[in-house]
Amino acid sequence: MGGGFGGLAAVKMLGRTQGDITLVDRHNYHLFQPLSYQVATGSLAPGEIAVPLRQIFRRQDRVRVLMGEVTGFDVEQREVSVDPAIAGTERRTIPYDTLLVAGGSNYAYFGHEDWRSLALEVKSLDSALQVRGRILQAFEAAELEDDAEAQASWLTFVVVGGGPTGVEMAGQIAELARDTLPAEFRRSDPRTGRVLLVEMADRVLTAFPPSLSRRAARSLEHLGVTPLLSHTVVDVQPDRVEIRGMDGRTKRITTRTVIWAAGVSASPLARALGEASGSEVDRAGHVAVEPDLSLPGYPEVLAFGDMVRVRDARTGEPQILPGVAPVAMQQGRYAGRLVANRLAGRVTPPFRYRNKGTLATIGRAHAVADIRGLHISGFPAWIAWLVVHLYYLIGFQNRELVLLRWAYSFFTHGRGTRLITEAADIHRHEHPGEEARRRH
Amino acid sequence: MGGGFGGLAAVKMLGRTQGDITLVDRHNYHLFQPLSYQVATGSLAPGEIAVPLRQIFRRQDRVRVLMGEVTGFDVEQREVSVDPAIAGTERRTIPYDTLLVAGGSNYAYFGHEDWRSLALEVKSLDSALQVRGRILQAFEAAELEDDAEAQASWLTFVVVGGGPTGVEMAGQIAELARDTLPAEFRRSDPRTGRVLLVEMADRVLTAFPPSLSRRAARSLEHLGVTPLLSHTVVDVQPDRVEIRGMDGRTKRITTRTVIWAAGVSASPLARALGEASGSEVDRAGHVAVEPDLSLPGYPEVLAFGDMVRVRDARTGEPQILPGVAPVAMQQGRYAGRLVANRLAGRVTPPFRYRNKGTLATIGRAHAVADIRGLHISGFPAWIAWLVVHLYYLIGFQNRELVLLRWAYSFFTHGRGTRLITEAADIHRHEHPGEEARRRH
Repeated sequence: MGGGFGGLAAVKMLGRTQGDITLVDRHNYHLFQPLSYQVATGSLAPGEIAVPLRQIFRRQDRVRVLMGEVTGFDVEQREVSVDPAIAGTERRTIPYDTLLVAGGSNYAYFGHEDWRSLALEVKSLDSALQVRGRILQAFEAAELEDDAEAQASWLTFVVVGGGPTGVEMAGQIAELARDTLPAEFRRSDPRTGRVLLVEMADRVLTAFPPSLSRRAARSLEHLGVTPLLSHTVVDVQPDRVEIRGMDGRTKRITTRTVIWAAGVSASPLARALGEASGSEVDRAGHVAVEPDLSLPGYPEVLAFGDMVRVRDARTGEPQILPGVAPVAMQQGRYAGRLVANRLAGRVTPPFRYRNKGTLATIGRAHAVADIRGLHISGFPAWIAWLVVHLYYLIGFQNRELVLLRWAYSFFTHGRGTRLITEAADIHRHEHPGEEARRRH
Repeated sequence: MGGGFGGLAAVKMLGRTQGDITLVDRHNYHLFQPLSYQVATGSLAPGEIAVPLRQIFRRQDRVRVLMGEVTGFDVEQREVSVDPAIAGTERRTIPYDTLLVAGGSNYAYFGHEDWRSLALEVKSLDSALQVRGRILQAFEAAELEDDAEAQASWLTFVVVGGGPTGVEMAGQIAELARDTLPAEFRRSDPRTGRVLLVEMADRVLTAFPPSLSRRAARSLEHLGVTPLLSHTVVDVQPDRVEIRGMDGRTKRITTRTVIWAAGVSASPLARALGEASGSEVDRAGHVAVEPDLSLPGYPEVLAFGDMVRVRDARTGEPQILPGVAPVAMQQGRYAGRLVANRLAGRVTPPFRYRNKGTLATIGRAHAVADIRGLHISGFPAWIAWLVVHLYYLIGFQNRELVLLRWAYSFFTHGRGTRLITEAADIHRHEHPGEEARRRH
């Protein structure tokens, strides 16, 4: 269940065994999520980072893909409830012998669900498309505006969260404003735009060593991004954001565009599994699983990826692993192998994560990398980032086209897909509940 | 006003004169509309047939692009009202010396506005994306369905209107069902799908000579499309369509997916111009303009494209020209030249349309062409269609990529952009007024 990195890796591994596999996902595509922020800035088109799940498995007769939202489990009856989410079809249950759950995570709005429609995230493809529309509309609105103050509010962009996605997003908006757009506007000057990156910690990219964080911050400033460290967001409104520093003082930023890349909340399916099995669920909603990724007491249920915490084989303590694609993929492959081994009567040693390194890119041709203690920054790190990402786009029909497009953007500072389409047109002044309802 | 084929041609021609030009469009892109149906079937991505207007004019300092919807004119005060359609901005008026109006046309639902949200059109990019989602969701729903009858209703597609767009759309859906999808489904068989093409006249492609209509109908049948000629649509519901034959008998078709490509209704701006000038407006909403495309009594207002009927220079009768890109482009160029001539004190002879031929494609590698009386069909006509369309994609950054993608699809029967994104997720069972409201 789940067509993300973890689910896909598991199904690919399982494909080598006997037995029928059903893959359920609420989207009809697998998304290369580490690049979805590039859709939000018009660098890449949706079709370049998403590929239909059916297409991936078209040659594997035993893999059946169903489009639907998993809404719950009955681990006693061994059944999954699926809501097809297509009007005119009904909710149904699917029986299983072995269940694999890889539901991933969403952004947490620190209990402020009303901010969700004002400060969109760029993790899902739909939301990234909306962000693209909002960013482009902000520049359009500035061009229409006569009042300097109003123009400035349209040209101020606030990104919340200084992790890899926030850093990448802030860098790309700054590049859009400084390099791509200026020649196209007559009455407003996109170069006067401000990009503010709000981070709760005292440095960006806290998963990296402090020296790389400092270099990343310098690169961001060089691009025109202002990092606002040691600040939390206390309010989001259609025309402003309020942030509070460590000294307790609040500042008001007049802005029309806020992008959210902070906090993680595991898929609600993690809590459902926790309740069904009595296993521990942490504050961010991760369910603790056994060292072999199984649910305590239910060896036929395996869960993995960004919705779980795996217990250490020796201490029994749930370990914290980064919520990145390599973790999910390693766990997915492990889960697939475990099921295959079980069918063959073989025992599988506990799951162990092999950290091959961490990468984050900052704008065009800059990145930081921490590869087994080796710290790289600047252009060499960016080349490493490019190679790794292109390598993992394997299986995507359009890999060569994406490379072409990137090369093109790189040399021309152009962006190919700056279209404002209807999904993006949802006005920010609509009632906050409206969008939340639409999601369900 | 208007970034379609006519408006763009006029601005390009005007670029050679002195004076400042403001281009207003409600979208931030120019759409290559003759191919928008290919977005609806996943053959092309939005970015491949749409290009930002600002990008087109980035090197022309005197051309200012504004994103907004023109809502009316004051031809006495020489002012245009523009609604920016971005929340947080206000309606404004723009003064003009010379006004060019190229508002195009929409599909007419024969007075049944409630059908609009059930039977989507594929002319606009937003709607084409929604149609893509509905078609793909129908196949997904069929895969989920256990009941054979329900499955059949999801696999039945009705296209209303046997003009070029309806014919092309029906052919593409049939190809999708027969060639692209079958390998990807396990429980349902897309090949059992039915595509019905409802046309009021006794033949498809009425703009072509009857012999080519017959050949087109044969090609369609060969692809698996059933043409239902001499039938009109009398009702559209979420789960069915009712059609009536010439004998007065009605038939009910059980279907979940209806696509609309019938009837033309000129932009409401045509009526506004008619009311302002007292000029004749026909039933489909076209305003009659003078032989030099000007509004009677207002030589500084020119209107052209699919929202006008040009009076014959000799008889004074409004002429009927096809609503195709070449007409709009010739008129746009004429309007630009006329304004330039006026500034230079030169007189311009009346507009005359030069028909260079008509083309329509039917699925992969089939087309019909009527080029100055020369009738071609089959593969040679398709090559002519391909050459003409690629030629006119000039100015589109991605022309080479589109060609690559087409070549790829042609040889693999694949479709690169089969993604169901949120714009497409608007459920058909919502209250019909809901979507109409959202459009405004």
